[in-house]
Amino acid sequence: MSNTHHAVTAAALIIGDEILSGRTKDQNGGAIAEHLTAIGVALREIRVVGDETDDIVAAVKALSARYTYVFTTGGIGPTHDDITADAIGAAFGVPVDVDPRAVALMSPFYAERGIPFTSARMRMARVPAGAELIANTISAAPGFRLGNVFVMAGVPDVMRAMLEAVTNQLRTGPKLNAVSIVVAHAEGEIADLFAEHQARFRDVIMGSYPSFAGGCYRTELVLRCADGERLEAAREGLERALRQRAIL
Amino acid sequence: MSNTHHAVTAAALIIGDEILSGRTKDQNGGAIAEHLTAIGVALREIRVVGDETDDIVAAVKALSARYTYVFTTGGIGPTHDDITADAIGAAFGVPVDVDPRAVALMSPFYAERGIPFTSARMRMARVPAGAELIANTISAAPGFRLGNVFVMAGVPDVMRAMLEAVTNQLRTGPKLNAVSIVVAHAEGEIADLFAEHQARFRDVIMGSYPSFAGGCYRTELVLRCADGERLEAAREGLERALRQRAIL
Repeated sequence: MSNTHHAVTAAALIIGDEILSGRTKDQNGGAIAEHLTAIGVALREIRVVGDETDDIVAAVKALSARYTYVFTTGGIGPTHDDITADAIGAAFGVPVDVDPRAVALMSPFYAERGIPFTSARMRMARVPAGAELIANTISAAPGFRLGNVFVMAGVPDVMRAMLEAVTNQLRTGPKLNAVSIVVAHAEGEIADLFAEHQARFRDVIMGSYPSFAGGCYRTELVLRCADGERLEAAREGLERALRQRAIL
Repeated sequence: MSNTHHAVTAAALIIGDEILSGRTKDQNGGAIAEHLTAIGVALREIRVVGDETDDIVAAVKALSARYTYVFTTGGIGPTHDDITADAIGAAFGVPVDVDPRAVALMSPFYAERGIPFTSARMRMARVPAGAELIANTISAAPGFRLGNVFVMAGVPDVMRAMLEAVTNQLRTGPKLNAVSIVVAHAEGEIADLFAEHQARFRDVIMGSYPSFAGGCYRTELVLRCADGERLEAAREGLERALRQRAIL
């Protein structure tokens, strides 16, 4: 059961051939998931697409129409395979050009460090018309926000800095509280009891996460609810039921 | 640039609230990406959706229409939040019921280990009509294939066993060979040179992956091509160009 109590929803769009080839293991989707959950935004979908304009445009259009916010990562660097800014411009039907505000952020950063402001680096100052810049406290070249789409870097440290930078702009819903109970039994032993418990507490989101290591079954039962008292009642009831079956 | 030389394409559909909440970091998308790339199937998209029937059905329909194969992970366990089999049945418009072939695989496994075949475990034998089973060498409860959709477990070890089990059923395209060159420079220093090189070798897929650690820039330039000779020519040409600029 997803977080249907949340009014504020989001999707993450991870852009890059390197993820789809398996060469790079994506960390950004998980980091965005954790951050949004913590602040009370319900991440409903993650998509990974390659460095293809048509695929990026189609995904941005679909996701920005469906969710409150879209967070993209990747494809805003200086090389020829960095095409996200142009794809976002195409999705919104606006031109993309060098933005003097971006140049003003990057110039002093490069000057202080003796980094030449090459034409390749100038590509990183290209932003769709009407966008607001997103600060990059790590390496200066900014991300940007256009409508409900936040366009961030793919390098995880830079992505995280940009996500922090936009957090105070976000509308948020109720934060879900979570508790978990770990039992040394397989899911198959407790599934019926757990389903009955879910039926009794329909407003509490219940998930079950099995693992198997060192010859031992382990199942983590996670309960989530915005209302702390209801959550506590659900936890107590579940522990009682597990004890009656000698599982806890 | 994606792997446009490939005729055989795929999408991965990762199912589970725990990924979208950030509680669990997905490993399956990356493992599927690596495996498919190695055997010559081009992974074009990864989607993560929650434990919601409508979201799963919509994603399965969209992805199975668009790509040669779809690989799903998650939601085929014994608990009430395991709804993938029913969602796949709904997407294909076929009924889902306990499959005697699945029971025959699971019964002896449980009997040998003294594991009770509970009604919850019987849920794991529910398979859409017309599906072929996928062997599970780890914990018996099978996955299944319906049309071009392969439905696999979410537990990473079990997922990998199932992916291995279906590999000989897959049509494959040309495998891409890859070489990489690492330079101790920022992307912005080599982007122009790299773009010119891409323009000279349009049949070679070129990507650039920056990182920054311990105060040092590092960029990995990756070249990919099914044709080994063309790849070698591209590599030599790029190394020569980098040396001329004293970057290598």
